[in-house]
Amino acid sequence: MTSTPLKIAIAGLGTVGGGTVELLTEQADLLAGRAGRRLEIVAASALERPAGLALDGVQFFTDARVLAREAEYDVLVELIGGASGVALDVVRAALERGKSVVTANKAMIAHHGVELARLAEQTGANIGFEASVGGGIPIIKSLREGLAGNRVTKVMGILNGTCNFILSTMQDTGRDFADVLAEAQALGYAEADPTFDIDGIDTAHKLAILASLAFAMPVSIDAVTCEGIRHVSALDIRYAQELGYRIKLLGVATISDINGEMAVECRVYPAMVPLSFPLAHVGGPFNAIVTEGDFVGRTVLEGRGAGARPTASAVVADLMDLATGRVGPTFGVPVDRLEPRPTAPRGTGRSAWYIRLMVRDEPGVFADIAAALRDEKVSMEQIIQRGRAPNQTVPVVMTVHETDEAAMLRAVARINGLSSVAEPPRLIRIESL
Amino acid sequence: MTSTPLKIAIAGLGTVGGGTVELLTEQADLLAGRAGRRLEIVAASALERPAGLALDGVQFFTDARVLAREAEYDVLVELIGGASGVALDVVRAALERGKSVVTANKAMIAHHGVELARLAEQTGANIGFEASVGGGIPIIKSLREGLAGNRVTKVMGILNGTCNFILSTMQDTGRDFADVLAEAQALGYAEADPTFDIDGIDTAHKLAILASLAFAMPVSIDAVTCEGIRHVSALDIRYAQELGYRIKLLGVATISDINGEMAVECRVYPAMVPLSFPLAHVGGPFNAIVTEGDFVGRTVLEGRGAGARPTASAVVADLMDLATGRVGPTFGVPVDRLEPRPTAPRGTGRSAWYIRLMVRDEPGVFADIAAALRDEKVSMEQIIQRGRAPNQTVPVVMTVHETDEAAMLRAVARINGLSSVAEPPRLIRIESL
Repeated sequence: MTSTPLKIAIAGLGTVGGGTVELLTEQADLLAGRAGRRLEIVAASALERPAGLALDGVQFFTDARVLAREAEYDVLVELIGGASGVALDVVRAALERGKSVVTANKAMIAHHGVELARLAEQTGANIGFEASVGGGIPIIKSLREGLAGNRVTKVMGILNGTCNFILSTMQDTGRDFADVLAEAQALGYAEADPTFDIDGIDTAHKLAILASLAFAMPVSIDAVTCEGIRHVSALDIRYAQELGYRIKLLGVATISDINGEMAVECRVYPAMVPLSFPLAHVGGPFNAIVTEGDFVGRTVLEGRGAGARPTASAVVADLMDLATGRVGPTFGVPVDRLEPRPTAPRGTGRSAWYIRLMVRDEPGVFADIAAALRDEKVSMEQIIQRGRAPNQTVPVVMTVHETDEAAMLRAVARINGLSSVAEPPRLIRIESL
Repeated sequence: MTSTPLKIAIAGLGTVGGGTVELLTEQADLLAGRAGRRLEIVAASALERPAGLALDGVQFFTDARVLAREAEYDVLVELIGGASGVALDVVRAALERGKSVVTANKAMIAHHGVELARLAEQTGANIGFEASVGGGIPIIKSLREGLAGNRVTKVMGILNGTCNFILSTMQDTGRDFADVLAEAQALGYAEADPTFDIDGIDTAHKLAILASLAFAMPVSIDAVTCEGIRHVSALDIRYAQELGYRIKLLGVATISDINGEMAVECRVYPAMVPLSFPLAHVGGPFNAIVTEGDFVGRTVLEGRGAGARPTASAVVADLMDLATGRVGPTFGVPVDRLEPRPTAPRGTGRSAWYIRLMVRDEPGVFADIAAALRDEKVSMEQIIQRGRAPNQTVPVVMTVHETDEAAMLRAVARINGLSSVAEPPRLIRIESL
């Protein structure tokens, strides 16, 4: 066994930091046996020294920046969070010293990944960010190494446990979004300010990272369009179930040839998926990622997407790679070889759709709706209208076959203009593989 | 870019060999960009030079042993197959020369993995065998690296596409085993001699490999008990469906404390799984592996388990690791640190069960069966008997709650001895997580 331990400094001792300390302590011998050297926590920082963590003999800092600049370590584990601020400062400081970094910080990687990867290349450091996407699921390693022989054409996933919990619970109980969100907050599954989760921003960060690895392009959050789950109603959930679908918040990244150029589309949206869909059964706190590669075909990786212990598992996987020298460029290739990709113009994609209208039950309304669809060559698959309530507002639900998004949006705009349509139509993509 | 290419010799140009040549040729630039050096096929062997493969400028051998001993390469890709014979000879020859090996050969790794890993350590070579389990699914890398922070307690999977195709087809069509097997053979999904697949031997090889990685023990096929799918009847498939289960051939490896020792149980058997089970929806040619780790919890990896292109994807992943120096001990730790584990004695496990009896419909028969179960403290969950046919043989199906295997086997032996029981009872484990 090499006598030199891997010296670890941990910045941030919250949930994930605590889990990481626990793992490194509990499994110290196991890890040493596997790595051929010990993984040793030498320094840590937090605003206050937390009780109950095994940090004897560990140099303690209340200022993470001082830790990053002054402590003696081989690798800094950044578990503070936030796209910039202290987290970014300490990561920059470590990399500038030529020290490697392991982080769970998806926001920082999504916003500053290219800059950090370049800095790491300049100073000979490495960056591990397995914990930034999919909790304990080894998705970063799989994309970067396990599927390295493939041209990946699509990567898609359920990437946010909070949204998945809320949607699963809405489905199981028939309750409303606001109600279930309040419960999730009470249970600690959702933050007091849930914006990042439920508006899809967290999913967008993770999708940007996956797309960068999958398509070897510079990570960029700007390329991701984002629609959250606030407006998913109990009514739509009920119809989805009746139609044989579940509603899941998906991040979907695809690359395809558009007018001779490989263009990328990165989108976050709630989608209806059929029960046979590989992600349909991913419930509660689980995440799952589907990848399509030209040789491997479809792979699906599923596991716990968050929490102290699963995330610590991913952090330590990166530490083990560093300890054993299994390292390489941050995004699979050197930054200068990442190829910027144009964003596919909106409306170029094709999809099947669910449309829910609230219409006043008047004579002729169906004819107007049907004409709007026909004129855009949108082909209807199913239609549900229950009972009748003359001159009152009733839901009318349709599904349409795969169609150009632009045509669909034009048809819906026209439908929205009909005097008998009482609310803007609710449009949900139906995902298939 | 490093100017030195990785020089590859391919022994065996059948289905997977052909797929590997295709991948290395089609994606040559992509791979070079990712690895920082070219992956170059310099030599190949097959009994006859195959038409239609891009092997211009490649030194060709008809004797793989000569290729292994004499060609100038960095890594030998063994795609001949078979536990020993030529495959083993060429792998030994390469390792003895200090050349690394990449192989898809589960039988060879299961039977000779320890010897080969030791040889590789002695000569400074490496062995990649990602393609030996789960086709294109990066399960070896995930177990060895992605979950390296975990104590794995269970690894379980659908590991044989032929059996999965047969069982899925039996379920979808209601047809009999022999009939579906014949179709699978006609379609090329099953070999002319299907023994390795349908008797579970192929699954056993793969399970032995997974267990070795998961529990850091010397790979050994002797530890695996093996039951195939020959006796799975259309009748049992039908009852399974009625009860809300599917029948899948599983390989299951667990480690647990038995009398103060960590004992391992490795078994291959057809099991009933509830529809909510993570493997229930894995159909046709797909494989999937569930892993339970103490920090990560449950992960599931799914993908195509065989075929030229998915297997080539795994072969090339190993080649990319070699090309970039991401290497380590064959089974995650040096051979001398692999710990032999005792095999859990038969009957120590607990499980729920499905039991199908063929009984002569006589007065008192239920009382005798119920008494046998009661005396062994086996608690019945459901019972199905349709109609009545006095003095004829009818199926009686029961499911029982989780119970000690030994007690279950004793109860079944007693039931088998009843004069009204016309055939040996059919016992199928009901798997849960």
